[in-house]
Amino acid sequence: MAEITSYKYRVEPQDVDFTLRASVSSVINYMLNVAGVDAHNKGFGVEVLQGQSFTWVLSRLAVDIECQPSQYDEVAIDTWVNEFNRLSSTRNFRLVRSGDVIAKGVSQWCMLNMETRQAVDMSLLKDVYCRAMVDEPSPIAAPERLRNVEVAQSVERRVVYSDIDFNRHVNTLRYIDMIFNNIPLDVIEHNNGLRIDLNFLAEARYGETLTVGFSSEESCYMFEISSDAGKTLCRAKVVFR
Amino acid sequence: MAEITSYKYRVEPQDVDFTLRASVSSVINYMLNVAGVDAHNKGFGVEVLQGQSFTWVLSRLAVDIECQPSQYDEVAIDTWVNEFNRLSSTRNFRLVRSGDVIAKGVSQWCMLNMETRQAVDMSLLKDVYCRAMVDEPSPIAAPERLRNVEVAQSVERRVVYSDIDFNRHVNTLRYIDMIFNNIPLDVIEHNNGLRIDLNFLAEARYGETLTVGFSSEESCYMFEISSDAGKTLCRAKVVFR
Repeated sequence: MAEITSYKYRVEPQDVDFTLRASVSSVINYMLNVAGVDAHNKGFGVEVLQGQSFTWVLSRLAVDIECQPSQYDEVAIDTWVNEFNRLSSTRNFRLVRSGDVIAKGVSQWCMLNMETRQAVDMSLLKDVYCRAMVDEPSPIAAPERLRNVEVAQSVERRVVYSDIDFNRHVNTLRYIDMIFNNIPLDVIEHNNGLRIDLNFLAEARYGETLTVGFSSEESCYMFEISSDAGKTLCRAKVVFR
Repeated sequence: MAEITSYKYRVEPQDVDFTLRASVSSVINYMLNVAGVDAHNKGFGVEVLQGQSFTWVLSRLAVDIECQPSQYDEVAIDTWVNEFNRLSSTRNFRLVRSGDVIAKGVSQWCMLNMETRQAVDMSLLKDVYCRAMVDEPSPIAAPERLRNVEVAQSVERRVVYSDIDFNRHVNTLRYIDMIFNNIPLDVIEHNNGLRIDLNFLAEARYGETLTVGFSSEESCYMFEISSDAGKTLCRAKVVFR
């Protein structure tokens, strides 16, 4: 068994939106960075897996934000893994500012064989993983499994250089941008907190044209991002309070 | 007279492109962040000017990159102001990694009255500015004044939430992204250094549709970004070595 680990960040100018608060994609960026660094520190980072052509893939994520931190705020991200089975591992997050928890997250990861593109049985990491497990429940309900979205509106969006990561796939954070770019500005400006659930189903490549489809009902916004070939890549649900 | 000031950064995962090196927009981001922090520390930051409804506006920028730093590299940005007249102030940058200067920049700023949208005579900052001046030449030639571009190709691009800053204008870094998103991936991947010159002429607002026009000749790429109304917002020239 292990303890919750904590990493410090400062909200930099490039992290904030027009309200001078960290955007949701920046809050998620802090969490995903910490996931990478903490996995590395505990001995199961991507660089260890790459030796076997394996990699981590984020399959689902839920983040509940009470309050977005402001530019130059100092924050800490607590993280811990508390569940692990053959096909999925659960990593949790708390974003803390001046002693208050202002955002919480739960992420589910699977391991992929990069050559066969098949899921890998994670039992092989059992020993190293068991030592990293923390006896602390997830801070919010697990990410929802999202169903087909009845698309009311859609916009097209080409995958460009600034979207892609090392594998030339669209970076997770760009999906978050695509989502919030289709929510009215005044909803983003005047929110009293929100919860976002994300399901990642497939990867988009450089040069593809994505369709961002969405619909809304009161304060709930549903998204489905799909590729040229009509393959669903990502679904999301954002509920504002 | 003052001394060159130095600020430390670490190249974070969100700063790198698919080559795992800091993108040009990230290198420029470090420089612009440092410009903001250094102006603040020397007593002429935006928060001082805002009391008089004035603000800093970046009018031209030239950056020469020998080598883009890699993910997790520790770098220092040196900065100093070495010229100042009624209408323009020149701030310089050096990006240093392990003692080597790997990028250099020169930026020209003017002061704007936010109410009248007119340039402000900077003589009023003379005393505080003179104390901040450093007797060190600019590390590269001043930014070029760029002429009309003969546009060979163009793409349209709506201004969205993730593009805008506090003033609801397109963030400078998004123009850099629009530029590099229209340069072939293999040119970006295999470059042996580059110089970019930028002229900022007007501001784009949320909801406008921008046209990114460009043309290229050998290793030189020219860009002109304009708004709905055909107003030129930004011109750029990128020369790869």
